[in-house]
Amino acid sequence: MPIIRVEMFTGRSEDQKRAIVRDLTDAFVQAAGGSPDSVHVVITDVDKGNWGAGGQLCSDKYPE
Amino acid sequence: MPIIRVEMFTGRSEDQKRAIVRDLTDAFVQAAGGSPDSVHVVITDVDKGNWGAGGQLCSDKYPE
Amino acid sequence: MPIIRVEMFTGRSEDQKRAIVRDLTDAFVQAAGGSPDSVHVVITDVDKGNWGAGGQLCSDKYPE
Amino acid sequence: MPIIRVEMFTGRSEDQKRAIVRDLTDAFVQAAGGSPDSVHVVITDVDKGNWGAGGQLCSDKYPE
Amino acid sequence: MPIIRVEMFTGRSEDQKRAIVRDLTDAFVQAAGGSPDSVHVVITDVDKGNWGAGGQLCSDKYPE
Amino acid sequence: MPIIRVEMFTGRSEDQKRAIVRDLTDAFVQAAGGSPDSVHVVITDVDKGNWGAGGQLCSDKYPE
Repeated sequence: MPIIRVEMFTGRSEDQKRAIVRDLTDAFVQAAGGSPDSVHVVITDVDKGNWGAGGQLCSDKYPE
Repeated sequence: MPIIRVEMFTGRSEDQKRAIVRDLTDAFVQAAGGSPDSVHVVITDVDKGNWGAGGQLCSDKYPE
Repeated sequence: MPIIRVEMFTGRSEDQKRAIVRDLTDAFVQAAGGSPDSVHVVITDVDKGNWGAGGQLCSDKYPE
Repeated sequence: MPIIRVEMFTGRSEDQKRAIVRDLTDAFVQAAGGSPDSVHVVITDVDKGNWGAGGQLCSDKYPE
Repeated sequence: MPIIRVEMFTGRSEDQKRAIVRDLTDAFVQAAGGSPDSVHVVITDVDKGNWGAGGQLCSDKYPE
Repeated sequence: MPIIRVEMFTGRSEDQKRAIVRDLTDAFVQAAGGSPDSVHVVITDVDKGNWGAGGQLCSDKYPE
């Protein structure tokens, strides 16, 4: 019944999200046991303009 | 001061959200006491392409 | 596959939590459709010393 | 390594978000110690149609 | 700067948590790119008495 | 109605938490407007054994 959430910068492709879901689920089950069927993964895409690090917006810190 | 969060697939109508807010608030107050005025409900719509179950993206598992 | 989270003050009984899980699940399914089997509810007990409202710790604002 | 999350109504400007990130980071470090470089701030913009208070959608309660 | 959160039943050992942190970090970087140094993993242990599934407390559904 | 959450290492004193609640609330209102009365702050104390950075448990990386 574990729930895994991932917050990351917007911009990953569908294929990368497919791999994130598959590989985090596998990694969790290997490390902690249980069945992959019970694992949920919820991805949140966060814009750089909504993420701050070190007191600065990431859209300022890491402009494209 | 309770905070209730709901993560669900994108696609519910405004009327369904209105009912979710009203009915979860009522249900909480009935079950746990307190005043409905202090209850917050925050809904997050999650695309099927951002939700994984059993190691698979829900957009692959449950295509429209 | 909806996930409902509840953050509330520490101190509810097991019976109240049982009712919260049952009644929020029922309320969600009535309002939004879907099957109760797919609904998860995760409760977080928050101490008044970890909750602030209006700039004050709730343990100061609402002493026992 | 602290993580600060802010959920607020959609509609704040980039300048307000810049100030939120800067000022919450400063306030945290002043109050709790540590280095600003390790503080993350993640902002979530929530539409009034996804936020309920007192059993009502905020889009009904506070129409524009 | 990705943040991974894991909510799971209370009871995993320190070694299992060490493996969860290491293996989820590796899996994320393989799937999505970036540097492992920027990945945070926050684990929340949830008691079965605070987790509901299908309208029932997990402490009732899966007694020890 | 903004909600601010703070996840930080376990170990801050009640006075530090009082200052976090007061100062983050003030900083938010200065930066984004609104009334301090509507601001909620929820603090989560996370043990170093539940926090990973760079693939390592913080309890291994930063032993007391």
